[in-house]
Amino acid sequence: MSPAPDLTDDELQALDAHWRAANYLAVGQIYLMGNPLLAEPLRPEHVKPRLLGHWGTSPGLNLVHTHLNRIIKGRDLDALCVWGPGHGGPAVLANSWLEGSYTDTYPDIGRDTAGMARLFRQFSFPGGVPSHVAPETPGSIHEGGELGYSLAHAYGAAFDNPDLLVTCVIGDGEAETGPLAASWHSTKFLDPVHDGAVLPVLHLNGYKIANPTVLSRLPEPELDALLRGYGHEPVFVTGDDPLPVHRAMAAAMDTAVDRITAIQRAARDGSTAERAAWPMIVLRTPKGWTGPAEVDGLPVEGTWRAHQVPLAAVRDHPDHLRQLEEWLRSYHPEELFDADGHPRPQVLACVPEGRRRLGATPHANGGLLLRGLPVPALERFAVPVDKPGATLHEPTRVLGHLLQKVMADTAGRRDFRIVGPDETASNRLQAVFEASGKAWQAATADTDEHLDRHGRVLEILSEHTCQGWLEGYLLTGRHGLFSCYEAFVHIVDSMVNQHIKWLRVTRRLPWRRPIASLNYLLTSHVWRQDHNGFSHQDPGFIDHVLNKSPEVVRVYLPPDTNTLLSVAEHVLHSRDYVNVVVAGKQPCFDWLSLDAARAHCARGAGMWEWAGTDDGTREPDVVLACAGDVPTQEVLAAAGLLRQYLPELSVRVVNVVDLARLLPKEEHPHGMSDAEYDALFTTDKPVIFAYHGYPWLIHRLAYRRAGHAHLHVRGYKEIGTTTTPFDMVVTNDLDRYRLVMDVIDRVPGLAVRAAAVRQTMEDARTRHRAWIRECGTDLPEVADWCWTE
Amino acid sequence: MSPAPDLTDDELQALDAHWRAANYLAVGQIYLMGNPLLAEPLRPEHVKPRLLGHWGTSPGLNLVHTHLNRIIKGRDLDALCVWGPGHGGPAVLANSWLEGSYTDTYPDIGRDTAGMARLFRQFSFPGGVPSHVAPETPGSIHEGGELGYSLAHAYGAAFDNPDLLVTCVIGDGEAETGPLAASWHSTKFLDPVHDGAVLPVLHLNGYKIANPTVLSRLPEPELDALLRGYGHEPVFVTGDDPLPVHRAMAAAMDTAVDRITAIQRAARDGSTAERAAWPMIVLRTPKGWTGPAEVDGLPVEGTWRAHQVPLAAVRDHPDHLRQLEEWLRSYHPEELFDADGHPRPQVLACVPEGRRRLGATPHANGGLLLRGLPVPALERFAVPVDKPGATLHEPTRVLGHLLQKVMADTAGRRDFRIVGPDETASNRLQAVFEASGKAWQAATADTDEHLDRHGRVLEILSEHTCQGWLEGYLLTGRHGLFSCYEAFVHIVDSMVNQHIKWLRVTRRLPWRRPIASLNYLLTSHVWRQDHNGFSHQDPGFIDHVLNKSPEVVRVYLPPDTNTLLSVAEHVLHSRDYVNVVVAGKQPCFDWLSLDAARAHCARGAGMWEWAGTDDGTREPDVVLACAGDVPTQEVLAAAGLLRQYLPELSVRVVNVVDLARLLPKEEHPHGMSDAEYDALFTTDKPVIFAYHGYPWLIHRLAYRRAGHAHLHVRGYKEIGTTTTPFDMVVTNDLDRYRLVMDVIDRVPGLAVRAAAVRQTMEDARTRHRAWIRECGTDLPEVADWCWTE
Repeated sequence: MSPAPDLTDDELQALDAHWRAANYLAVGQIYLMGNPLLAEPLRPEHVKPRLLGHWGTSPGLNLVHTHLNRIIKGRDLDALCVWGPGHGGPAVLANSWLEGSYTDTYPDIGRDTAGMARLFRQFSFPGGVPSHVAPETPGSIHEGGELGYSLAHAYGAAFDNPDLLVTCVIGDGEAETGPLAASWHSTKFLDPVHDGAVLPVLHLNGYKIANPTVLSRLPEPELDALLRGYGHEPVFVTGDDPLPVHRAMAAAMDTAVDRITAIQRAARDGSTAERAAWPMIVLRTPKGWTGPAEVDGLPVEGTWRAHQVPLAAVRDHPDHLRQLEEWLRSYHPEELFDADGHPRPQVLACVPEGRRRLGATPHANGGLLLRGLPVPALERFAVPVDKPGATLHEPTRVLGHLLQKVMADTAGRRDFRIVGPDETASNRLQAVFEASGKAWQAATADTDEHLDRHGRVLEILSEHTCQGWLEGYLLTGRHGLFSCYEAFVHIVDSMVNQHIKWLRVTRRLPWRRPIASLNYLLTSHVWRQDHNGFSHQDPGFIDHVLNKSPEVVRVYLPPDTNTLLSVAEHVLHSRDYVNVVVAGKQPCFDWLSLDAARAHCARGAGMWEWAGTDDGTREPDVVLACAGDVPTQEVLAAAGLLRQYLPELSVRVVNVVDLARLLPKEEHPHGMSDAEYDALFTTDKPVIFAYHGYPWLIHRLAYRRAGHAHLHVRGYKEIGTTTTPFDMVVTNDLDRYRLVMDVIDRVPGLAVRAAAVRQTMEDARTRHRAWIRECGTDLPEVADWCWTE
Repeated sequence: MSPAPDLTDDELQALDAHWRAANYLAVGQIYLMGNPLLAEPLRPEHVKPRLLGHWGTSPGLNLVHTHLNRIIKGRDLDALCVWGPGHGGPAVLANSWLEGSYTDTYPDIGRDTAGMARLFRQFSFPGGVPSHVAPETPGSIHEGGELGYSLAHAYGAAFDNPDLLVTCVIGDGEAETGPLAASWHSTKFLDPVHDGAVLPVLHLNGYKIANPTVLSRLPEPELDALLRGYGHEPVFVTGDDPLPVHRAMAAAMDTAVDRITAIQRAARDGSTAERAAWPMIVLRTPKGWTGPAEVDGLPVEGTWRAHQVPLAAVRDHPDHLRQLEEWLRSYHPEELFDADGHPRPQVLACVPEGRRRLGATPHANGGLLLRGLPVPALERFAVPVDKPGATLHEPTRVLGHLLQKVMADTAGRRDFRIVGPDETASNRLQAVFEASGKAWQAATADTDEHLDRHGRVLEILSEHTCQGWLEGYLLTGRHGLFSCYEAFVHIVDSMVNQHIKWLRVTRRLPWRRPIASLNYLLTSHVWRQDHNGFSHQDPGFIDHVLNKSPEVVRVYLPPDTNTLLSVAEHVLHSRDYVNVVVAGKQPCFDWLSLDAARAHCARGAGMWEWAGTDDGTREPDVVLACAGDVPTQEVLAAAGLLRQYLPELSVRVVNVVDLARLLPKEEHPHGMSDAEYDALFTTDKPVIFAYHGYPWLIHRLAYRRAGHAHLHVRGYKEIGTTTTPFDMVVTNDLDRYRLVMDVIDRVPGLAVRAAAVRQTMEDARTRHRAWIRECGTDLPEVADWCWTE
């Protein structure tokens, strides 16, 4: 690799000045609460009493930022950067302050001495800003506290942004994680025609918290082979002497961007449809570069000891204080800032203008770019329902037609994607393939179906990559849906935690504009994994998300096709939420017409008068409540049995679509008041609640209600195997017969013959068990059951 | 690659016969419930009414099994196989039946016609066996329903098993997942001296459920580079003509095992300490190989359509029935089985004997090999506690000394490992490095510390790999501990789901012997992530595991050092559990002497008489309950404030170590009876419960108790940022002042001055907020607080 031919010594010095300024500001943030420009000798009281921050990665991030500035300005690039080592917050904040985007966003932190003092003091300080690249950080779409997601986020940002260059700094620690390792293969999904480019910068600073990193200790040919195996053409930049590294880094950036331009040009002018090897940079510089070489006799620069705060006892040890001052002065702040704290012109020579600045790009504040999604009128897709339970449809298949139309209507805009781990068709959404194929840049075969170099359906067998792609896509102002098997969405539990935390914070930042919600469609759910067995049966994702910020989280359990359409319309239009929609793909009775579905979904929970025997003039004897498609079916079957066997009983059927309705209104924006809840569920009548997931979740939501002592919940009790669909509900005591028995066990003063009815139910369960072991299918009376009024 | 020189035509034919027999048995399991040997023409009633199973991967698994048989028998190898494509249950069951290990395990399934009929019928049939390689499957340590963990499991099995060959079949679908992608780098952690070998077989059958796979569509040089980058020397076996593939596969197996032997010999005789490139096999054969080429005019063999059941409507379509019969007869069952259904001698020629059979290896039933762990007497490590709250210790640091001793005492046996994502020292367990370094086979530098080619501490920055390694290690009969940041253990939510499911099933199988529990030490927990901020604050893993089978799950929250030691002793001795231990690493008051700690942990929850003002003669006015180290500290501080300000109040302090004690005894083996619960918590007095995690979990556990209406829980409300430790509890209303206010708000009939006390508390909170914003540290009165009686 040759030095960039057009890099003059002045330019080189200017790049170095910018880098030194950023390093100075990073150290200042970690340590100082006074004397920001070292106008006087450093004294203990200038240093924060608690030192919290990560120095080790910061000089590397500063180097990348400096050189991104250069190439963005030199070529007028539209660029975004994802900072994988997000704990290097001091670096990204330093750069934002230098380029002025920080002051634009937070006018009280000016680009002067007072502003610098505030910048320093607020960092990792109570009431100040977090130590990581947080939502509060201008230009960021990626927190980086939990490692592994930077590269998938970068690809998500690049999809359908053909003019965008997304640089992604990947720490060599992060590179050991599974999600990061999987996302390298995103190279097979990036369309050089309609997508932008991702430029990975693998930063090998050699150490994690306490260990060397795996990739930094590979012989270079082995690492080179690995990266070529991922589909990249690596450019290596190695060194610890700043000026040669600057030259090499500038040359590497030029090489990489030239190569990206060539790939995109060749694809866009149609001269090739071959997948190219995309460039990437391997940057090998010391951890904690330019920091203290030794502290207390132990090596620090270039080792794991530089990870956080190299000098830990500055207030108490004069030696440490002296070392800190020497370290700070080694950057020559007087050359970098004028007496008023303004960065000098040389420092800012490489910095681009306006929205080209990495801290000011609207792509990192996606709500600025977001357009409303054209969701078509549901009337075209709704199934006709003249009376409840007379017809069957596969809810997700019908939803597929709606999504096909959304996909078609965004063909020009390209701002809607569906992601999933190889399950779009399995989840019966395949109608979308009529409007868009599946993105695929690798080799194809004649037998393939629906693969499309320009497709907007993304399928890879990695829930992590799917989630990361979608998060990156949404955070940069687009729309999408993640369709997933219910059990395996737990794979992204920790990722969704972080996204919810991100949204919770951004909702409190006025400058952050709302983005499209992250919508999950969880299908192939617990009750219909009878064929795959126990490993595929898990409804706990609902519990997981309901632990998180109520202002962000919504859970919907539409009981039939039209309610699914109504919920889908709502979530696709919504902003700043994580919406979890659980809906089956198997044939399901149509209970509600579109109008009724809309009204029911708007209420979120309500009586189904037609299903009960409650005449509305007095409180019923019992409430049969349900949430979820299979529980709803069982409750309606139980209601039918009760009407048949105990017609004098007044039964109210309540269906819950929006699970948070059960919470008190003080605890969730969708929560019901006690008056509403009591009117629906009564305060003293038995409530038999058939729920889709773990039964105790319903208790957790409703424990404050007056009628809670009378609430009896049936749900999934973590019992399953390969069996029949009805056996799944019998085994977990969620079946119609058990629900009738529950009613008989709990309603006082029933007729004497209730005992005989109970025995009839018990007999039906016994008959079921014998039948399935003999025939392997469900009893005809169950399999062919249909609702009759 | 040349054909194996010693493979005669007879041997070749025998291998093919074994493979055909296994294929026949796989198809038979998916389809047949009668006529197993096709003694008569196939009729619809011979076919199961519901067809559930995965054909696509089965012929490939059968091929690998056949060739493993050959090489195990030929070289008398001690071998285990991890079947990544676990949905290919029919293949593994077929092989187990052929080799006789199935009949050994389940004598009612004989190796004859009647046994074959039962084998077929039971598959994916109600009351039968699951469709995947499940715990019920002899020779299995890996379910494979959730993809991604096979290779980490294989390495876990190989660690400290120097004579074991662990083959791992990795599907090309699974290879796209993050956990699998990360675990390739296990090559840098496998010690050729003390560990066995892992032989990955990457099976490229080209398709997932509905898509081509990424790796199968890479140009071979690119794939080769990738695998070399992972540290492997790949041997490619490609074809769709059985006999040449058999020759190539036999040669590849010979090459691989020769190479493994050479690597191990060189390392063990000390002739090299260099990391070698381990061999692996890339097997490229058609999906659904030997199945129907076309069905209903569409290609099936070699496409994704072969994934599950290639002929779906056999009972209803005579054409499908005919195709199925032709398919079955294409294997020439009459050549493979005699008239009584016994496999013919040629079929069994390659099958090894006794415990060498893959379905009979004790390594797959690790409890057979498990030895009790030498946990030393706690007295040597316990901290002296003359009176409560007079001294401080870092609980995990003290635990580190205990673990050091365990590590030292297993130096010869090598059956104990500690895994963690680069956090062993951060979690203050570094004393263990005195007994064992960290496993590391890559390059080293002078500045490294505690790296050791033969170390038994495993650190890689992948929670997935850590978890997979440990699971594989435990399942093969050894012991271990996973030390992890509390927030990021969510990364393995889905993995622990599967492990808990596995344990739940194995506990019901008499032939499966109990294995050591999977022990988590969650430290660097929510309350002490004030420096890393919101992304690092999450106590929800407890909620996650408590949704799972109560017979498997245990959660402990030791409040101080000696209770942590007592809990650690208990969990290290336990079997077949998943134990979650949450304990801080920061200085923590010592409350209990070792004797008191043991007594308290044995009870799991109990009164701390010395901390309250409850004289035991009557019910107290209020119960202050706590679970977790920080909540315990705040409750004791609150108790102190109450004694100071409202000395007439009778306060009972209750500490809960074992969280499941709160559950009813009907719901968890550790649950308290109502009588016990009521005696501890009262039925009608206010209970202010300070809990480590999300407060509603306590309600979920205790909602059935008589006193539940009086239970008021404080905990983490998903509010956090970078701030001070005490501010974390104030922000979440878990602080001592708020707890005192809670008492005042809830105890009826307090003295008039209680209102003034309440205001004093409110003032303290206000003073705190002002102070931290000014000084950045906690108020001295909080930071220096200590317990006084």
